[in-house]
Amino acid sequence: MKIKANDELNYLTTVFTKKGFSKEDSHLLADTLVDADLRGISSHGIQRLAWYLKMVDDGTIQPQNPVKFLKESATSLLVDANQNMGQIACNAAMDKLIDKAKQSVISMAVIRNSNHFGTAGYWARKAVAQGLIGIAFTNTRPLVVPTNALEAFLGSNAFAFTFPAKPHPFVFDGATSVVSGGKIQVLDKKKQPLPGEWAVDKDRNVVSDAKEAEDILATAALTPNQKGGGVLTLGGSNEHNSNYKGFGNSLVVEILTGILAQGSISADTNVGKHDFSQCLLAIDPSFFGNLDALRDKATDMFNRIRNLDHLPETEIKIPGDREYRNFAYNQEHGVSIDEVTAGQIKQIASELSISAPTEISF
Amino acid sequence: MKIKANDELNYLTTVFTKKGFSKEDSHLLADTLVDADLRGISSHGIQRLAWYLKMVDDGTIQPQNPVKFLKESATSLLVDANQNMGQIACNAAMDKLIDKAKQSVISMAVIRNSNHFGTAGYWARKAVAQGLIGIAFTNTRPLVVPTNALEAFLGSNAFAFTFPAKPHPFVFDGATSVVSGGKIQVLDKKKQPLPGEWAVDKDRNVVSDAKEAEDILATAALTPNQKGGGVLTLGGSNEHNSNYKGFGNSLVVEILTGILAQGSISADTNVGKHDFSQCLLAIDPSFFGNLDALRDKATDMFNRIRNLDHLPETEIKIPGDREYRNFAYNQEHGVSIDEVTAGQIKQIASELSISAPTEISF
Repeated sequence: MKIKANDELNYLTTVFTKKGFSKEDSHLLADTLVDADLRGISSHGIQRLAWYLKMVDDGTIQPQNPVKFLKESATSLLVDANQNMGQIACNAAMDKLIDKAKQSVISMAVIRNSNHFGTAGYWARKAVAQGLIGIAFTNTRPLVVPTNALEAFLGSNAFAFTFPAKPHPFVFDGATSVVSGGKIQVLDKKKQPLPGEWAVDKDRNVVSDAKEAEDILATAALTPNQKGGGVLTLGGSNEHNSNYKGFGNSLVVEILTGILAQGSISADTNVGKHDFSQCLLAIDPSFFGNLDALRDKATDMFNRIRNLDHLPETEIKIPGDREYRNFAYNQEHGVSIDEVTAGQIKQIASELSISAPTEISF
Repeated sequence: MKIKANDELNYLTTVFTKKGFSKEDSHLLADTLVDADLRGISSHGIQRLAWYLKMVDDGTIQPQNPVKFLKESATSLLVDANQNMGQIACNAAMDKLIDKAKQSVISMAVIRNSNHFGTAGYWARKAVAQGLIGIAFTNTRPLVVPTNALEAFLGSNAFAFTFPAKPHPFVFDGATSVVSGGKIQVLDKKKQPLPGEWAVDKDRNVVSDAKEAEDILATAALTPNQKGGGVLTLGGSNEHNSNYKGFGNSLVVEILTGILAQGSISADTNVGKHDFSQCLLAIDPSFFGNLDALRDKATDMFNRIRNLDHLPETEIKIPGDREYRNFAYNQEHGVSIDEVTAGQIKQIASELSISAPTEISF
């Protein structure tokens, strides 16, 4: 079904408030999910709601806990998210990083004891809205099998990077693995096959059935008992295609999050505290050159790439192009919600005695 | 043939000195190439010598030009390599970044008007030797075709990242593309086929003949006339396998190098000044936690990964494992030089009236 983004925002804000988050935090959490749905990143949109609420209900998330700043310098922050949602700690941390980068050129925060933080791009875009480079990393539940391995160990480990450009900023935002677990969830809900070399079973044979892949991932991510297999690193199943580079990128994120934060590494978030860690950076490009000139230079490069000779019936898209196009379209035409999630939305509304968003009719 | 690393170092230092570099710079340049050969990264070892000297001979490289620091803050540097080799500017910049990171937790340098800087890992390892995280990026000649494109535009754009660990640091070091151009050069010199989905022709058909690929790359990299095709982004030829993520990673490096430095982007280095740009960072992990504890935590994660269930007759290697193993072995047994490069070494020795390194006999 389709719903209006504003209805989604109001619904989610009400749900989170009813679940014990402050009004301000509820609005923030809602905004991160609606923003993802508007950009067509439905894997990180309202389909995550049922999971968020389950974590509130079982005490994994403590909606009233305030963010704690454990250590702070002119450039750096060590933050304790205090078992609350990642969005709340990351919003407070990025606000501080933006101020610090404007003063000191570059700044970095490491966040422990956190949880899902929405899309990585949301935090990197917060910096670019101020003319800064924004960078965000998170570890996740264990989903990803290292090169040659037969079992999941690494998180899908998102990475986002933004830079000023016209008509919209450059926004690279995605899992370091070949796909995020959420993308497989979405195809499983839609009963569609996996279109590429995304996941393997316990013998490293490529899996194309979304349900089979989702069963492997759910077991690895949420229980201490693995079936073997998981999502592949970027580069696919074959070492000859340099899947060890995707593995390396995933490890860099593990280091900057779980290791530096002295929290759990992804492999240890399937049991116990389920704590995630994040790392955020902000960099002021205007130290290196005039901001308008840098924005123009980047824009010119992107336009040259968009106009390169390309395969017939394809398009060369710069990271961010698709998301900003979706954003404009979905603001006007509403966001799409898959059927399973639509059912969850109604059930949650009923349990909390609130109204569900109205389906848009055509 | 095989030669002793120390003979290689002496030979290269003499060659560079004869070509007009200072004694100190000659030793540095030689060390970066020998270090690559010792680590088994022969694509970035002495096989680059003939190319380096050609650039000195045609005036692209000015061996006497001093590094210029254009702008400096407590955390940041803008550097002009002054049309000299990248190693010289990056060595001076990383020395300053290490001091700055120890004072300010994080520091960053952008370097313009530079050239090849050896392996990215060399600079990131310089930081980790001081207990810091080291990060290095460079753009390169245009070799890499964006997702869906039919022509090369991006550089192979190296990225290195180091972190303290035992028995050796974590060292991720490689092109953001599926392979570096140098790897294809090496297979061409050895007359071996490309083993994976590495390069495409003008119709985006995968090329397996190393000579055909090398012809495509040499034309794109060194002339304004493209044949079409080039090296693939990490993720391979098919958009379904998320090759746009490899494309995104390559663009991040373009932004942090050519764009931020206001130098040439990779696409514009095949003619004219051939200037490359670099970006280096150093981060002090001890702001976030006790260094020994962080090193132990990282080491424990790496050991758990090395011991995961894996495919028979394979090994799970953490980035750096292969290189440190090669380093120890080649220090003792000598470095391998391919036949084409061996011929070049002798010819250069003859032209400069110096001794070539002696072949080790077994």
